[in-house]
Amino acid sequence: MPNKARATLETLYRIFTVPEAPDSTLGSIDHAITDDVAGFLRNHIVAVERPLEEIEASFSSCAIPEEPTYVSDYTEFVKENLVAQSVHTAAPGFVGHMTSALPYFMLPLARLMTALNQNLVKVETSKAFTPMERQVLAMLHHLIYRCPDDFYPPWMHNSQAALGAFCSGGTIANITALWVARNRLFAPEGEFRGIAQEGLARSLRHRGIDGIAVLVSERGHYSLGKAADLLGIGRDHLIRVPINEQNRIDLQALRNECRRLQDRNIRPLALVGIAGTTETGNVDPLGAMADLAAELGCHFHVDAAWGGPTLFSDRHRHLLAGIERADSVTIDAHKQLYVPMGAGMVVFKDPTAVSAIEHHAAYILRHGSKDLGSHTLEGSRPGKALLVHAGLSIIGRKGYELLIDLGIERARTFADLIDRHPDFELTSRPELNILTYRYCPAAVQQRLAEADPDERDRINGLLDQVCQLLQKYQREAGKTFVSRTRLRISRYGGEITVLRSVLANPLTTDEILASVLEEQCEIVRQPEIHALLEQIG
Amino acid sequence: MPNKARATLETLYRIFTVPEAPDSTLGSIDHAITDDVAGFLRNHIVAVERPLEEIEASFSSCAIPEEPTYVSDYTEFVKENLVAQSVHTAAPGFVGHMTSALPYFMLPLARLMTALNQNLVKVETSKAFTPMERQVLAMLHHLIYRCPDDFYPPWMHNSQAALGAFCSGGTIANITALWVARNRLFAPEGEFRGIAQEGLARSLRHRGIDGIAVLVSERGHYSLGKAADLLGIGRDHLIRVPINEQNRIDLQALRNECRRLQDRNIRPLALVGIAGTTETGNVDPLGAMADLAAELGCHFHVDAAWGGPTLFSDRHRHLLAGIERADSVTIDAHKQLYVPMGAGMVVFKDPTAVSAIEHHAAYILRHGSKDLGSHTLEGSRPGKALLVHAGLSIIGRKGYELLIDLGIERARTFADLIDRHPDFELTSRPELNILTYRYCPAAVQQRLAEADPDERDRINGLLDQVCQLLQKYQREAGKTFVSRTRLRISRYGGEITVLRSVLANPLTTDEILASVLEEQCEIVRQPEIHALLEQIG
Repeated sequence: MPNKARATLETLYRIFTVPEAPDSTLGSIDHAITDDVAGFLRNHIVAVERPLEEIEASFSSCAIPEEPTYVSDYTEFVKENLVAQSVHTAAPGFVGHMTSALPYFMLPLARLMTALNQNLVKVETSKAFTPMERQVLAMLHHLIYRCPDDFYPPWMHNSQAALGAFCSGGTIANITALWVARNRLFAPEGEFRGIAQEGLARSLRHRGIDGIAVLVSERGHYSLGKAADLLGIGRDHLIRVPINEQNRIDLQALRNECRRLQDRNIRPLALVGIAGTTETGNVDPLGAMADLAAELGCHFHVDAAWGGPTLFSDRHRHLLAGIERADSVTIDAHKQLYVPMGAGMVVFKDPTAVSAIEHHAAYILRHGSKDLGSHTLEGSRPGKALLVHAGLSIIGRKGYELLIDLGIERARTFADLIDRHPDFELTSRPELNILTYRYCPAAVQQRLAEADPDERDRINGLLDQVCQLLQKYQREAGKTFVSRTRLRISRYGGEITVLRSVLANPLTTDEILASVLEEQCEIVRQPEIHALLEQIG
Repeated sequence: MPNKARATLETLYRIFTVPEAPDSTLGSIDHAITDDVAGFLRNHIVAVERPLEEIEASFSSCAIPEEPTYVSDYTEFVKENLVAQSVHTAAPGFVGHMTSALPYFMLPLARLMTALNQNLVKVETSKAFTPMERQVLAMLHHLIYRCPDDFYPPWMHNSQAALGAFCSGGTIANITALWVARNRLFAPEGEFRGIAQEGLARSLRHRGIDGIAVLVSERGHYSLGKAADLLGIGRDHLIRVPINEQNRIDLQALRNECRRLQDRNIRPLALVGIAGTTETGNVDPLGAMADLAAELGCHFHVDAAWGGPTLFSDRHRHLLAGIERADSVTIDAHKQLYVPMGAGMVVFKDPTAVSAIEHHAAYILRHGSKDLGSHTLEGSRPGKALLVHAGLSIIGRKGYELLIDLGIERARTFADLIDRHPDFELTSRPELNILTYRYCPAAVQQRLAEADPDERDRINGLLDQVCQLLQKYQREAGKTFVSRTRLRISRYGGEITVLRSVLANPLTTDEILASVLEEQCEIVRQPEIHALLEQIG
């Protein structure tokens, strides 16, 4: 081997074996995060936003560097160009998306998980992680379905069954649920070998139907559209049912849609109830939906990606009544279980449901093995279940209850603040811990009350622009953050732009919420927004 | 608030703010991993395997604990019951699966990623991570397609385009590729609004075809079966084409299958070439497959989940010749890019290809935004791209080249050891860094050479059992590890069980490989295996 190659080889060997010295750049960042993660984030993330185009300049070469780089040089680059320009999702004033501060033990346990580098697809590369993941799924199953204790032992570690599937997030969870529902609807019977083998077109012919449909309210998550596309159902057959004033599915409209589908020989594959809509945090009438699903003989899925952990709360659990009748439930761990990004679950009432998507391979996932990969959409996966297991164990049911109660209380407090403020208008009242509102000065509220439809639409159009700029300027200033969306709200005669706040960070205080509104009142004085408000007249 | 609730609230607040003391149980584990991860794994993972049923006993309660638990108590539990009973995937003697030791900088950078907790679905929760991910995809695109440098600037950060999609692993990458292919085949035209809207059955009718098919060799990864199921194609139409002696797709058989499909009015959706088969590490004739795909006018996907990084090597890159003609390519970062579990990518030749699966939502992924989530199968995702970016930057093209060259060289060394050993038989010669072999004593090799088909099958059946037990006992002993699979190999007259070795851990030495064989020679002396060998006669 030539000398140069040998030198590089030695460097490589070092890369795989020698830890970073504590006083090196990366070592000191690592220590700073270990010692005080909140301080680290506060000190290293630059609040004021640089334009994305400027940031892009640091990430614009398409060439993979030829030569190795020193870790310290790379770390300096990352500190300046990536960390400084990332988003402080853990900040207590960042109340616009579904990310929160994390319990401190998540970081060292995540490092442990990374160091162990298990692959949960099969027992041979995950051993104890496999039963642990199965236990976590059983715990969630129990939280949702409250089956008697003796229900679980025969299923929990049973190679022929699974109480659910772990995955990278709610989207994959929703897709998995509908995949299972689809494959159960077209299960093998007689000569027909099932949809997994024969495909969708032949399955429809076999059953003599012209299509299958998924029904969800207008507030359904966009992942359901992806599922309808991916599974071959088509977005046309993702039926978005109108909602009532409480952002809940209109049951009569749902029944009508089902009838209309049946008239067209289209079979409802699944009703999807939402436990915590992404935009407004409302909960569908799950019990009534379960009734209808039973009547139709179709799958009932509940997307509780956000709201599922409300079940921890003795006080608020009743809001999700009926969820125990769902065939499948999605819960995101990286939301209200306070696990780092990239952990979701789908839980199935019937532990044999996943057999509808079972698959095998000669080198792993052999028949009879307990390999988790035989019924997951993903293949190789990390041991994220550890972090859920840790949360459930360390925080406990009562700890999560407190977090849930706190969030709902805080959302009500924020709603009160908005209600009492003359220049803001609550556009959706919080049922859980999400609310929407908009800036709408008292005088304009008055004008709107008296306006004819054309004038109303004109004013709302201008308020939409105000809302959009307000949200943008606030984000760019980097002190506090709310998100925005567009909602069709019947009392506004159409779709309007609203600000959206998610109250799940336990470090958010009432003072911070007050300051969010104060900052917004200041921002609207900026010329561009002021001009829009002037136009309202 | 009652006192008890307040006390719990304070505990909770501490959980979100106070770091673990360095001398606490979790703190000391954290430090041990920081200081010497290899030592930590060696010291804490128990080598000898406990039966899974025993481990399950520690993970058998379905009840979420009511009360919070001390972090230290939980950590003790994890140390004993999880860490001790996990798999030492980083061990240099663990040469059976596709996990390796990790470069040391991956751990602190993974912690940084977790601490930042960005959500890559949208710019508002990931800011600089978005251009960084786009750059990583461009780098991989450049590695594969080697487009001129001026190709990249208009596309890299273009909101209307994407050079690929990041995901949790190769399975999602393969599914995404075929999803894009399917949706492009049934793109909107005239009155027809495309498959995403209208679904598969109507799309087939629109084109007047009776089905679509995906063709791949028998060595194709099982994720393609999942894709065929999920996308509504049906596993019947995942055509597994016979292979030749080199485990490469038989081109004549492929042509014949295509013809047979066309005779049945079934349209080939995609040909899938494999660059590094999971079981034997072989590479399909990609250039010839590209020719055929062009002739058929169908999508050409290359599953380079394993073998893609071979492109780093000047010496071995030619093995993948033709990959630059693929419409899409899967590469796993958690394999030969040495990133921790849970990172894969699919790269598209045409930067507008992903528009076939584009989706939007009112609160994020708005039209014109650079949000990465508008064309990924997953929704919320972590910033794993940082670890790929770090690997490419720190290790560099030449570093990865060395790793690739080293693995291929080591596989040849191991093949030589097996060839020279009288009692082992190489069942597939390594083209990249994967090989298969089996225990077959010299005398039995002789017997087999002279045996009639019945006798051959009888002997092979017994050798299969030997192989299976040998692999199991070796795994249980925990010193070294190879995996096993079943391969149909024509010169053995059918399917046989083989041992499989993957040589990608740079810390694996020739001595370790010799000891793997030595240990196997010892294991076969155990009574149960010995009795099987006796039966051969």
